Amino acid sequence: MFNIELEKAIKLMVESIEEIKETEEIKLIEAGGRIIAEDIYAPMNNPPFDRSPLDGYALISEDTKGASKENMKKLTVVDCIFAGGYSEKVLQKGEAMRIMTGAKIPTGANCVIRQEKTNYGQNEVEIYEELSEYDNYCFTGEDIKKGELLVKKGELITYVHQGVISSMGISTIKVKAKPRIALIVTGDEVGMPGHQLKIGKIYDSNLHLIYSRLNEFGLRPVIAEIIGDSEEQVGKRICEIIQDVDLIITTGGVSVGQKDILHNVLQLIDANRIFWKVNLKPGTPAMYSLYKNKPILSLSGNPFAALTTFELLGKPVLAKLSGNKTLQPKQVTGTMEDEFNKPSMKRRFIRAYFNNGKVSLPKNKHSSGMLASMVGCNCLIDVHKGTTKLNKGDNVEVVLL
Amino acid sequence: MFNIELEKAIKLMVESIEEIKETEEIKLIEAGGRIIAEDIYAPMNNPPFDRSPLDGYALISEDTKGASKENMKKLTVVDCIFAGGYSEKVLQKGEAMRIMTGAKIPTGANCVIRQEKTNYGQNEVEIYEELSEYDNYCFTGEDIKKGELLVKKGELITYVHQGVISSMGISTIKVKAKPRIALIVTGDEVGMPGHQLKIGKIYDSNLHLIYSRLNEFGLRPVIAEIIGDSEEQVGKRICEIIQDVDLIITTGGVSVGQKDILHNVLQLIDANRIFWKVNLKPGTPAMYSLYKNKPILSLSGNPFAALTTFELLGKPVLAKLSGNKTLQPKQVTGTMEDEFNKPSMKRRFIRAYFNNGKVSLPKNKHSSGMLASMVGCNCLIDVHKGTTKLNKGDNVEVVLL
Repeated sequence: MFNIELEKAIKLMVESIEEIKETEEIKLIEAGGRIIAEDIYAPMNNPPFDRSPLDGYALISEDTKGASKENMKKLTVVDCIFAGGYSEKVLQKGEAMRIMTGAKIPTGANCVIRQEKTNYGQNEVEIYEELSEYDNYCFTGEDIKKGELLVKKGELITYVHQGVISSMGISTIKVKAKPRIALIVTGDEVGMPGHQLKIGKIYDSNLHLIYSRLNEFGLRPVIAEIIGDSEEQVGKRICEIIQDVDLIITTGGVSVGQKDILHNVLQLIDANRIFWKVNLKPGTPAMYSLYKNKPILSLSGNPFAALTTFELLGKPVLAKLSGNKTLQPKQVTGTMEDEFNKPSMKRRFIRAYFNNGKVSLPKNKHSSGMLASMVGCNCLIDVHKGTTKLNKGDNVEVVLL
Repeated sequence: MFNIELEKAIKLMVESIEEIKETEEIKLIEAGGRIIAEDIYAPMNNPPFDRSPLDGYALISEDTKGASKENMKKLTVVDCIFAGGYSEKVLQKGEAMRIMTGAKIPTGANCVIRQEKTNYGQNEVEIYEELSEYDNYCFTGEDIKKGELLVKKGELITYVHQGVISSMGISTIKVKAKPRIALIVTGDEVGMPGHQLKIGKIYDSNLHLIYSRLNEFGLRPVIAEIIGDSEEQVGKRICEIIQDVDLIITTGGVSVGQKDILHNVLQLIDANRIFWKVNLKPGTPAMYSLYKNKPILSLSGNPFAALTTFELLGKPVLAKLSGNKTLQPKQVTGTMEDEFNKPSMKRRFIRAYFNNGKVSLPKNKHSSGMLASMVGCNCLIDVHKGTTKLNKGDNVEVVLL
């Protein structure tokens, strides 16, 4: 298909891809940012026992009947329980046990008196308050009940999950394998930084940009290379690696010039081109193909265009492949703080800064291809086709980066 | 100092700490999330040469004078230049050179004609349009001028920086060393997941929580241990490691009970306690000390309290130490979508979800200590002292997590 809308392009891509099936068992403490591949039901109660919420004395509520500062009751202190410990004794009428915050309430006790309401006695304690059953008493499973669904398959693991799962005694979890991504930057003109630049050549932006962005998503590419404009070489390389990767992202060679080799490369290897050209600027000539059932997303070689289309087209592909829903582009509405005067014949995405409903443009007015002006931007404004101008105060849709 | 306000606590901590001085030279492609330790000025122009923005023919504008479809001009094509290549010839009057997008404009030419305005001639080309000097002509340094400040010391490196710096030919950069953090979880009751739990004990939450959260900040602790409630042991361990770390975070043992050992530990090792108790809930008994000029931040052992105070007190410490300003807690204003009925005698921070100006409370109404209910929360509502109720529609200050 040619010249399709962004939404249609995303639909075509997402429908053509299956989520990674492979899983791996990894240490819980290393599982941050991974997608959990199993439902986790609480294997135990938390707390695992009835527990004291404060420092005081465990006792039987009946023994405190009518107690007050003036009419104090005396109980024999038969044991002392710290957090992490327990008493083997069963508490009897007329008895109390010293107990600290977090400690297991002894069998026989049905409440805990706050130490400030006693004389802090060691062998015998004076009780200055009447208590009811289960006063200051945390029940087994009050925080988490055994059998309760704790984490749902498909969730992105964060530090809070890691804390909760650890509290259940679980030290390893099953997560989705990460998609293996190859990044191929084409272009005879592109040289790697750190090397001498020959006349007519420029240093790479795209490999560093997309590699680093994938890294930010926790998806470090397994292959990242610059290959020149040789159709044979690019085709050969794709054939070599296709079995070992789940996705190939290319940049460059997708327009209509003599050196726009991707068209011929895909024909050469007999890949199935799903679409070419998306109705948006920058990055119109984006292309998407399937080869041996693996997706190949081909972006423009212009760094700003590559970056924009990577955010718009790449992220939905990554979200589907990896099962990480948080990678789906997130759209919100905001109010323009600045003017944008350029008329847009085509739908256009411009870089901007979104903060709590307000959308501002970068201060340094560089050309649209200028990558440096993207520093600090965190969204793309979706400027509709035919818009002559965006005014201050206009409501706009933005895609958060 | 005792019972101080949060803002005062932050001020005391931040003033007591110096930013890490050590730097290291690392590969640009691995530098995402690091703090750059040098200003980077553009060492070259970008583009490094005058460049064609499209596929066409480079020529001298005077040669196109009066040209149109009806009155075409003919020029001799003397060379062909692809992106990455260049011509050694100097273009003369009456001549043109085939040129592709991104290629170096040859010496002698002062404009480029779009190929659609020609007959695509190979040896001789027909020109159908009159051009002015520098039409379709990208100048050297149009994107980045040599000597221009590109990245400022202290900025957090993102993928955009990585792309821009790479385009300047730079492959390694100097970044701040990461602070070396030790995490010590105290408590006789705490056991590591994956091991059998003895009666009266509970599994760790705090080590997993804070370790994982630090990981999310790119600051993996160099030491992370659970130590029991032995004052001697905890004190000895702090003495052993203090020279090798820049910050110690402890949890547990900071309240007023018999097993709140941190007070004695700090006396034992002769550390200087800067403050104890901050006027907020949860996590009041937070404590901050200096030992051999190194900061020790001691948080409550209750997981929800530890987490809240880690966000409120820990992040400013990390921001200062690491030089990473993005770790400073960010406050915004939002509108309540739900009610909160609990009166707050003390200033209180409650977990919530912030989305584009709207603040909602977690659906599962668990007890305040319940960690699992924090899943999906991304902010803390700052509930002022004396607040009886938060109503739907109330404006509240929130701290983003």
